[in-house]
Amino acid sequence: MLYSFNNDYSEGAHPRILQAMMEANLEQNDGYGLDRHSNHARELIRTAIEDDSADIHFISGGTQTNLLAISSALRPHQAVICANTGHINVHETGAVEATGHKVLGVPMPDGKLTPTAIEKVVAAHSDEHMVQPKMVYLSQATEVGTLYTLDELEALSACCGRYGLYLFLDGARLGAALASADNTITLPDLARLTDLFYIGGTKNGALFGEALIIMNPALRQDFRYLTKQRGAMLAKGWLLGIQFEELFQNNLFLELADHANDMANQLRKAIQDCGYPLQWESKTNQIFPILPNAVIEQLAADYLFSTQLTVDENHTCIRLVTSWATKPEAVEQFRLSLAAARVHE
Amino acid sequence: MLYSFNNDYSEGAHPRILQAMMEANLEQNDGYGLDRHSNHARELIRTAIEDDSADIHFISGGTQTNLLAISSALRPHQAVICANTGHINVHETGAVEATGHKVLGVPMPDGKLTPTAIEKVVAAHSDEHMVQPKMVYLSQATEVGTLYTLDELEALSACCGRYGLYLFLDGARLGAALASADNTITLPDLARLTDLFYIGGTKNGALFGEALIIMNPALRQDFRYLTKQRGAMLAKGWLLGIQFEELFQNNLFLELADHANDMANQLRKAIQDCGYPLQWESKTNQIFPILPNAVIEQLAADYLFSTQLTVDENHTCIRLVTSWATKPEAVEQFRLSLAAARVHE
Amino acid sequence: MLYSFNNDYSEGAHPRILQAMMEANLEQNDGYGLDRHSNHARELIRTAIEDDSADIHFISGGTQTNLLAISSALRPHQAVICANTGHINVHETGAVEATGHKVLGVPMPDGKLTPTAIEKVVAAHSDEHMVQPKMVYLSQATEVGTLYTLDELEALSACCGRYGLYLFLDGARLGAALASADNTITLPDLARLTDLFYIGGTKNGALFGEALIIMNPALRQDFRYLTKQRGAMLAKGWLLGIQFEELFQNNLFLELADHANDMANQLRKAIQDCGYPLQWESKTNQIFPILPNAVIEQLAADYLFSTQLTVDENHTCIRLVTSWATKPEAVEQFRLSLAAARVHE
Amino acid sequence: MLYSFNNDYSEGAHPRILQAMMEANLEQNDGYGLDRHSNHARELIRTAIEDDSADIHFISGGTQTNLLAISSALRPHQAVICANTGHINVHETGAVEATGHKVLGVPMPDGKLTPTAIEKVVAAHSDEHMVQPKMVYLSQATEVGTLYTLDELEALSACCGRYGLYLFLDGARLGAALASADNTITLPDLARLTDLFYIGGTKNGALFGEALIIMNPALRQDFRYLTKQRGAMLAKGWLLGIQFEELFQNNLFLELADHANDMANQLRKAIQDCGYPLQWESKTNQIFPILPNAVIEQLAADYLFSTQLTVDENHTCIRLVTSWATKPEAVEQFRLSLAAARVHE
Repeated sequence: MLYSFNNDYSEGAHPRILQAMMEANLEQNDGYGLDRHSNHARELIRTAIEDDSADIHFISGGTQTNLLAISSALRPHQAVICANTGHINVHETGAVEATGHKVLGVPMPDGKLTPTAIEKVVAAHSDEHMVQPKMVYLSQATEVGTLYTLDELEALSACCGRYGLYLFLDGARLGAALASADNTITLPDLARLTDLFYIGGTKNGALFGEALIIMNPALRQDFRYLTKQRGAMLAKGWLLGIQFEELFQNNLFLELADHANDMANQLRKAIQDCGYPLQWESKTNQIFPILPNAVIEQLAADYLFSTQLTVDENHTCIRLVTSWATKPEAVEQFRLSLAAARVHE
Repeated sequence: MLYSFNNDYSEGAHPRILQAMMEANLEQNDGYGLDRHSNHARELIRTAIEDDSADIHFISGGTQTNLLAISSALRPHQAVICANTGHINVHETGAVEATGHKVLGVPMPDGKLTPTAIEKVVAAHSDEHMVQPKMVYLSQATEVGTLYTLDELEALSACCGRYGLYLFLDGARLGAALASADNTITLPDLARLTDLFYIGGTKNGALFGEALIIMNPALRQDFRYLTKQRGAMLAKGWLLGIQFEELFQNNLFLELADHANDMANQLRKAIQDCGYPLQWESKTNQIFPILPNAVIEQLAADYLFSTQLTVDENHTCIRLVTSWATKPEAVEQFRLSLAAARVHE
Repeated sequence: MLYSFNNDYSEGAHPRILQAMMEANLEQNDGYGLDRHSNHARELIRTAIEDDSADIHFISGGTQTNLLAISSALRPHQAVICANTGHINVHETGAVEATGHKVLGVPMPDGKLTPTAIEKVVAAHSDEHMVQPKMVYLSQATEVGTLYTLDELEALSACCGRYGLYLFLDGARLGAALASADNTITLPDLARLTDLFYIGGTKNGALFGEALIIMNPALRQDFRYLTKQRGAMLAKGWLLGIQFEELFQNNLFLELADHANDMANQLRKAIQDCGYPLQWESKTNQIFPILPNAVIEQLAADYLFSTQLTVDENHTCIRLVTSWATKPEAVEQFRLSLAAARVHE
Repeated sequence: MLYSFNNDYSEGAHPRILQAMMEANLEQNDGYGLDRHSNHARELIRTAIEDDSADIHFISGGTQTNLLAISSALRPHQAVICANTGHINVHETGAVEATGHKVLGVPMPDGKLTPTAIEKVVAAHSDEHMVQPKMVYLSQATEVGTLYTLDELEALSACCGRYGLYLFLDGARLGAALASADNTITLPDLARLTDLFYIGGTKNGALFGEALIIMNPALRQDFRYLTKQRGAMLAKGWLLGIQFEELFQNNLFLELADHANDMANQLRKAIQDCGYPLQWESKTNQIFPILPNAVIEQLAADYLFSTQLTVDENHTCIRLVTSWATKPEAVEQFRLSLAAARVHE
């Protein structure tokens, strides 16, 4: 049996979450997210982001959340700017375009947008023969594991303000970002600096579920209609509520992310101890080592992981992902396997 | 605390399903429905429908399944015919239109389409200035609890064949239909007579999930792309697989539907014993009694239910729904409450 | 050679319009509707509607204008209410749905919506599981040749105001309406009572072209972006400008409509003189006589026209349409043909 | 009065075309492109492309043709590959995305796609989490005036065949390409090597209109429905037919393009005689000289033209466009103005 470092959604949910679902199983709850658990989870999140007024919607998955958030905010001729590596640009099968909107991808070597990059896109879209950029999409952590700093986010938010752009932050891996040793951005910062963002549950210990937080009041109107229309309103919505209740009680959300990061740190150290470089520096739960192909081949006999890009004829960058469920003994085993593979390289 | 007869998705999942999810919780599974549980569930369903070749996709909810199935099968200028009461026509916030397709609703007093009704629509759409009808959408059981008979479905299928229309059957409440005393249609009949149909889990004991079964090979191509694009591909897809594994083992699916129908039969008898009529005859888990408003008012003090339509100044048709989780003692209590309310009418 | 009463767009343009296009042919003009002719035509229309602020866009055709106007005004979950016979509901191949919006068609025997009908639709759409009605679409003259009165339009406008609905009037045959002996609505009335409406050129003497007039400032923003996106921005936009310059100078627009109506009146009289009834009463350029099938067969040997509906085994309602170009001698000839056919019936 | 080299659609139509429209003005013609002129024009084009079976549709404008052709051929999850500079990628306000499809723009220095570039895009789109490339979009001449050679087009066509991609060629400026001294591709070559392509009228002497030629039978089905749905079916369709009748009789189409190219050649020579370089080499009707800003400023006092890109602090690349209507004396005047400006630089 191969051990998987393929992604952070290979296992189910943290046992506390499953336990809470068991306990509530025979309760009768209102449907479609109007139940007591969802409302309680909303209160817990409002407390965590230090904003009483935030509008919060629980959605089953990330692609669904992205397409819903973006298509609800934009008029037909408006477009969203993102890094070329942005999840909406490459890994959602054109879900945003399927709602009618162009995604303006900008090549950014570290997966992070900058005000300068945004300004260039805005400047290049000068009249009605071109789409109108109206939203900026960021991921935190990014798809290559990097992090925006608070200064960077402040600057991006100010830039969006200057050009009348909505700022939307995809937090599918927000847990790993918040728990990172390098993190400088808090949940209240996100609430203050973005128009809307989401906190990812699927990749941090929930069975499924993302909490979309709409800060800009102009984007709240009729959001439940739009959710229903996209097929994104779960009948038994309290299932999402219960999961976020657990994640935002007793610090579980950060605790789980902390474990994932810790496992990643150990993997990173093992790689660096072997003298192998990383494609992107990051202190989150994704690691992108550049390894000799011979080493990769040996590792592939025991572990599942994906390849990110070809570096040269003999070297490939792979992706290792850890999660709340990654076992320390598997990480230790990987360390030994890597050292052994290196010897036989 | 009010007891709810509001719908069939007020409680969680049958304990056997939750138990199976617990047991598999720390397994590492492939994502996106490519896992062993989903594959096993597919095998179980193929056995149940007696067709080895069926293409089966598990989707989180009914609206999502409907919009995905319809938009994947139709070209931009093509439309879907349904009864005016069809779920896609009234209760999905225009989800089908949001994918670009017109829904051609036909008034049918009992919620059931007929070949004659379809032929009229086809005849009325004669050239390229009008949409091209290309699909027929049925619900079994219908939104008003009625059932198609096997003869009717055979005739509808033949009619679709004559006009080159795809036949799609929404089985959100297929369990209640299959378990009904009046039922004459089997799962293999559905597989034989439709181009695609789905078996509803959400309303019959699953936490969530529908099994979409694509019989027509022409409609199978690239379906996973289309699923992903609509945000309908669950990361932890095995959660759906596990639920359908349980539902299609040991007869659980029918057992749960049987209980729901039994509870509905008892409610129906209680209503008829009081001399109150039903708006639609049905032997499924939805009941539509016409009650004096004064009686309704009294019942509303103890029970949750929805009103379906205004009959006259003094009478209203309400909707009562039972489920796999409906408690016999709640039904008995309702019987007593109704009898008491009738006396004080 | 058959003489055509098939529609009001069988011939080219009034010679004065062609003449103006010839004269301007070698001028160099700015593209995309930003030229002097378009601006002058806008001024002429603003004078005619007695509103200096109106935002005016020239579009090549009716379906394009309708889909553009509707999709630009509505958010994704919003729908447009119209009479079942509305052009957008039956004769535009689902163009509105292709932009994502449901058309809520209401059966109205005379093709005219009423506040009561609108209120019923609004009342039936009570929550986020249903589309949100946000616009009312009227045609003047309607698709069956009938006319709204000023009182009716005032009431509809007030009704829209009460429910926050935009009022959009399709004026593909507005000329015939304005020139009708029964007309009580002026262009300034339309400007005052609707949010947006269009004045049809294609069916009243232009080669092609409709003037869309946006009265509600909230609907004006970025309209040129939306026009371009739908492929509705003509490169040589001055061609539209020139045509509307001519139509709104020297009263040509009404003069042409007056001729069409006059020809229709003569046809109507001929039909009534023969004792044949009309399906709809109207004083515009469309006539819907109910004729014996034997008579229709004889007429079909010399004239082109369409059939509207089957009345009974022996009678059919046909549609005759006149235009600015209909020849009086053709009408006289038709009168004789009809009388002759009646004798041989 | 400034003389415009801004584009090739600043004037009306060639007088022969206007004359033909005048002559047919009072004919009664069938609507929507089903008339004798459109059919005759189709025959003339079929002769020119040496293919009797081609399906030909006349559409009013380029953006409309592009969005219609692309959205009709692709299923929802499929995407179109083009050079980054492709008209659909930058200058159509997201018209293609508005129909639901991603445009995959590839940076190509000379505006021309290559098989290698296409293969890279195909290889990068490996599974259902990404859009499926299904069409390649080329422009001939390209947006920067360059030309594909026959060898290049053969290679591109073969590449498309290998990967199951449709090949669509935007011929908005096909006239200038065909008439170019450098041209190696004939109309029959285009018919043989593409799945569909269009011959642009708007930019080569018509008032408006493009002839879309569908070679691949699989893409022909129901195309008139799709045309109507996008608002692209002109009521008086014979106006398009008449224009293409004239363009494809007596060699007018090539004659007009030849004049445009000749004017461009003279401008090019004038620029090169002054020692100024061109950003892109081309022998079509668009010229992209790199001029000192001081020179540009002086020219701008007498001529209209657009700026293409900033080269350095002191130099800018401008765009000059000639057409069938460009006056030789204006070109001569420009030559003198340029020489004078150069002296005073």
